[in-house]
Amino acid sequence: MTVDEARSRAQRKADTLAKLTAPEADVWVASASDAGPYLVPLSLAWLDERVVLAVDGSSRTARNIVEHRAARLGAGHTRDVVMIDAVLERAVPAAEAGAIAEGYAAQSDWDPRQAPGDYHYLVLRPTRIQAWRESNELAGRLLMRDGAWLA
Amino acid sequence: MTVDEARSRAQRKADTLAKLTAPEADVWVASASDAGPYLVPLSLAWLDERVVLAVDGSSRTARNIVEHRAARLGAGHTRDVVMIDAVLERAVPAAEAGAIAEGYAAQSDWDPRQAPGDYHYLVLRPTRIQAWRESNELAGRLLMRDGAWLA
Repeated sequence: MTVDEARSRAQRKADTLAKLTAPEADVWVASASDAGPYLVPLSLAWLDERVVLAVDGSSRTARNIVEHRAARLGAGHTRDVVMIDAVLERAVPAAEAGAIAEGYAAQSDWDPRQAPGDYHYLVLRPTRIQAWRESNELAGRLLMRDGAWLA
Repeated sequence: MTVDEARSRAQRKADTLAKLTAPEADVWVASASDAGPYLVPLSLAWLDERVVLAVDGSSRTARNIVEHRAARLGAGHTRDVVMIDAVLERAVPAAEAGAIAEGYAAQSDWDPRQAPGDYHYLVLRPTRIQAWRESNELAGRLLMRDGAWLA
């Protein structure tokens, strides 16, 4: 396989923001409880430097994240990834979400306010973001540390 | 968005096996510890109905899975997914892996036996497999239950 030249940190940040703000962007959402690891793909919105997910309140992902306040997210493809460690800032019922709901509906291809179920928006604050493509990009993959961009 | 017709269970099983046996197949691997959820993309091999991963023994994924004996894997794309719940059957040091190492090298695009580090193969036995594309395929997504294929 041909391995491309490693991107600069500034380029990785630009590529990362392009992924997170793309229409119909999805992420793999890993959460955990005493019962073990859980993982599902979900749509996201990127609003005010926060990852916003919409989850049914009874779902395992919602229960795990509300209880443990942490998630790890993978965006992009397995050989062009963005990894985000995030903490839960707040969980907002769909009917009370205002601008969050508008922003989510604008970026996503669905609107949880129109869906049956007990949807909540989870507002997650990234604390660490990494981005790499292949092994040649493992060095320099750290883009955010302790909630602060490095580029 | 146009939603295609839902696939039959037999077709989903065929599509799932095609994904798992493809050259250079990757999966998102979620594991957990008391420190919370962890997630990384890794190459896999599908050998004798087992998912085989190669991990450095000191990696967080290796430590989580060896300690807690469980992982949840996502293959494919976020809108054409295969979700696998799996338990650890055994962990084999690279130098002692024999046919496992040969099978892994044949399907993957790298050979952990040639890499620096303390690589082990994790042989994971699927207990539950689900496959769906969009919301129209959520019904019928269960393909394996308690380690037995349903199709």
